[in-house]
Amino acid sequence: MPHITLPEGVPGIRSLVMYRPDTGQPLYELAQALLRNDSPLTQAERELIATFVSYENACQFCTNSHAAAARFLFGQDRAVVDAVLADYTTAPISAKLKALLPIAQAVQVDARTVSDELVAAARAQGATDREIHDTVLIAASFCMFNRYVDGLATLTPTDPAAYDAMGERMGTVGYQLPTTTAVNADSPATHLS
Amino acid sequence: MPHITLPEGVPGIRSLVMYRPDTGQPLYELAQALLRNDSPLTQAERELIATFVSYENACQFCTNSHAAAARFLFGQDRAVVDAVLADYTTAPISAKLKALLPIAQAVQVDARTVSDELVAAARAQGATDREIHDTVLIAASFCMFNRYVDGLATLTPTDPAAYDAMGERMGTVGYQLPTTTAVNADSPATHLS
Repeated sequence: MPHITLPEGVPGIRSLVMYRPDTGQPLYELAQALLRNDSPLTQAERELIATFVSYENACQFCTNSHAAAARFLFGQDRAVVDAVLADYTTAPISAKLKALLPIAQAVQVDARTVSDELVAAARAQGATDREIHDTVLIAASFCMFNRYVDGLATLTPTDPAAYDAMGERMGTVGYQLPTTTAVNADSPATHLS
Repeated sequence: MPHITLPEGVPGIRSLVMYRPDTGQPLYELAQALLRNDSPLTQAERELIATFVSYENACQFCTNSHAAAARFLFGQDRAVVDAVLADYTTAPISAKLKALLPIAQAVQVDARTVSDELVAAARAQGATDREIHDTVLIAASFCMFNRYVDGLATLTPTDPAAYDAMGERMGTVGYQLPTTTAVNADSPATHLS
């Protein structure tokens, strides 16, 4: 049960941006800019960082939905998502991503622990300023999204199929504020993401 | 020294939104909507929650700058800011705010610990859905801002006067993306906030 009255049957962040669209709008714009717009990191890699941080924060809704988006975007390499969650140090990802994930992890735990050594190790694998920046901001923003979703105890679907639908939507449509039409639509699938 | 190359001499979040304005824009819009636009909580109370969370996250830049904004907005009651940071349970604040701060604290530590009991205690002091929502989102968003600022080791002024200037700017102008003009201005005071 959510702690406040939210649109019924709408899960996670989506119920919150519908509750307060004037904060929802910049939140979705941030997600779209960070996870979809131009970046030297692929959309799949960025969704993977978001999933990893959400998993570290034990946010079920964000972990499941962004894992689904990452799997959709990785396509035939989708198994990489679960491999990273199991142990990123042995997962079949690039050496650069393997050096960026500890930075994301440090941001999640205590951002003051992002050390010169961690940054140098990422640069040694070819990471640029922009990739280091985006990794830090994705990790920081999911420390917000995770807390927003869990702090208000939003609806967290238990059916894996619900997340598959969200993942496909997030991987194609991206992050768009739900319209009133979507809220009133008959099919719950139309307002999942 | 920041971990990436940022506009020189520009402190904290401001250097980051100048580095990447397309993410900076929604970040500042979020801060403006949350801390300045209409809310049943006063601007001073909202800056106080932001300061409290930043203090718990040990983010010096955000603590000092938002404390300065809160002091500016509290005016003659400015001493309340330091009283809250010392011990909010004995600070001269409303019973409602005293019941909302533990919710902000729970969000900061682990948002899954925002319990029905904490929420019921806030409601018993008159807190509405909207006040509970805004408290959670302010706390969550500062868990992002604090990590973004510290994770990239941005410039943190040590001169208290620099924060007084920021506080006044934040309390009057609010959260506006720096323009290119401001970036190139001669006086550093014009691009502090």
